Amino acid sequence: MENKQILLASRPNGVVVPENFKLATAAVPEPSKGEMLLQTIYMSVDPYMRGRMNDVKSYVPPFQIGEPLQAGIVGKVVKSNGGKYPEGTYLTGMGLWANYMVTNGEGFQPVDPDLAPLSYYLGVLGMPGMTAYVGLKGVAELKEGDQLFVSAASGAVGQVVGQIGKNMGCHVAGSAGSDDKIAYLKDELGFDEAFNYKTQDIHKATRDANPKGIDVYFENVGGPQLEAVINNLNFNARVALCGMIAVYDNKLEDMPPGPRNLAVLVGRSVKMQGFIVFNYPDLCKEWIQVGAGWLKEGKLKYRESVAEGIENAPTAFMDVLKGRNFGKQVVRLAGD
Amino acid sequence: MENKQILLASRPNGVVVPENFKLATAAVPEPSKGEMLLQTIYMSVDPYMRGRMNDVKSYVPPFQIGEPLQAGIVGKVVKSNGGKYPEGTYLTGMGLWANYMVTNGEGFQPVDPDLAPLSYYLGVLGMPGMTAYVGLKGVAELKEGDQLFVSAASGAVGQVVGQIGKNMGCHVAGSAGSDDKIAYLKDELGFDEAFNYKTQDIHKATRDANPKGIDVYFENVGGPQLEAVINNLNFNARVALCGMIAVYDNKLEDMPPGPRNLAVLVGRSVKMQGFIVFNYPDLCKEWIQVGAGWLKEGKLKYRESVAEGIENAPTAFMDVLKGRNFGKQVVRLAGD
Repeated sequence: MENKQILLASRPNGVVVPENFKLATAAVPEPSKGEMLLQTIYMSVDPYMRGRMNDVKSYVPPFQIGEPLQAGIVGKVVKSNGGKYPEGTYLTGMGLWANYMVTNGEGFQPVDPDLAPLSYYLGVLGMPGMTAYVGLKGVAELKEGDQLFVSAASGAVGQVVGQIGKNMGCHVAGSAGSDDKIAYLKDELGFDEAFNYKTQDIHKATRDANPKGIDVYFENVGGPQLEAVINNLNFNARVALCGMIAVYDNKLEDMPPGPRNLAVLVGRSVKMQGFIVFNYPDLCKEWIQVGAGWLKEGKLKYRESVAEGIENAPTAFMDVLKGRNFGKQVVRLAGD
Repeated sequence: MENKQILLASRPNGVVVPENFKLATAAVPEPSKGEMLLQTIYMSVDPYMRGRMNDVKSYVPPFQIGEPLQAGIVGKVVKSNGGKYPEGTYLTGMGLWANYMVTNGEGFQPVDPDLAPLSYYLGVLGMPGMTAYVGLKGVAELKEGDQLFVSAASGAVGQVVGQIGKNMGCHVAGSAGSDDKIAYLKDELGFDEAFNYKTQDIHKATRDANPKGIDVYFENVGGPQLEAVINNLNFNARVALCGMIAVYDNKLEDMPPGPRNLAVLVGRSVKMQGFIVFNYPDLCKEWIQVGAGWLKEGKLKYRESVAEGIENAPTAFMDVLKGRNFGKQVVRLAGD
């Protein structure tokens, strides 16, 4: 029994490269009194992790060089030294890029393996799904009949955003980076409009996909897509800023120019708001119930990419940053 | 008795030039039944008018070529044909760049010439003052102890923003475009910090003027000042987007790059919101009482630039767009 871990070897200088990671093997840790040994079954790789690789002030501290990176995980209590949950319990929370870790249970929640597959608690019922729900309900105040647009629409967050919009009676359009993804959005998820931003003129395509303008934009990418959206915002539009994957790789000095047309926000009384999902705990809890219900009713579809083994976590993460994954990317470290 | 008017001769192609205006003389109009003849005493020139010179969709229709431009005015009812207000009443509202106009009184409010000088109803107690109050109270939710920063700080809106901040117990910093203006902000208006953005490194000066970061930014200018501010925003900061004078002169294709660092808004949960003062009528009314009280107590100072005669209105307006005015710019068309 050994404990493989992925450590941060160096901070990326622009694009993330394999050399930023190091695979290490340590002894399986022993839980002290009141602690539990958790075996990781699934771990999540997400775009926001790119920000934590930089040594900058943010809402969570940066990853430390020589230490394992952190990730949302689903794990099983395999040994308890008088810990909070009995052996055999499945927990989700912020863990490590590692096979094993010890925890006193703080920040972890038990999950029900019968309500949904375990990996779903890292995706549609986990942080990405909660992010979609919080951004739409808590930040953008989405309501029936709104014209909703989402970028990175086939990603872990985007696919949930679009389906919440459809279930709430909105016109839903989105952009993504391959024709396969576009077909999936339209044919399987029921998007009204979707386009491939890599092969279309982004300004024209954004306008065409949103013939009545945009009331709510769920922003995942930044860059030219944001500028194109701003030109199509309606009066009193709301922009939920979830992430800006297009700019994560760059140092400030090297970042591409921002949208030239921010002055539009003044005349059209637009609200643009960044948010952190953990600041909306009530909506997060609400989503687990709403989302699980919709999954059961067939009103919420969900697609995953599963990488096998911790050794492949860095590649899976770099794929996400490049948009190569299709659906929510997770890594399986052990059988359920 | 003749009615001089300034017409829109052509739409500006970038910078506003004298040829965009035309002085014309018309007969003084006759009020129909239920109407009044209003003589303009003061008219306002404001940066937002630049937007209305373009033929683009906004919250108010664009100015029309061959027609008089519009402006906030204070006028006197000199003839009433059974109109809403008796002769001798002073009214403020949206009027014309003209000596005379007829109105049924809709959209006009009577003003009290004993409460404050008439021109103040175009400035500190008018739209600019209301804009400051609405932006801080209704949009940015300013509270005691906040770190407040304002650009174009010596302008019609900015000087009121800073003084509201001081009266509410905030740390107040601002930027403006001349050393005279900076001295005025610090020595007369009580700003804690102020700098000349034309002679300083804007990133360093913004950081130095806001040693505890920025909780509320009242945005008047856009461009590099916005980017510098974003780097210094605190968690849960609020940005009230009032205007972006730095970009008004440009067509979209020619606009300077936007802030490269918008992704900061995500991690720091920043709200950035455009607003239109007329959508907050209750706060506008509240401000007239609050502002008049502060003026009387000496807790609110106010500086104007007064141009004489309608012939000089275009020059006064172009001066505002170039930042050449010092304090609120108005044009006097007749004696009080």
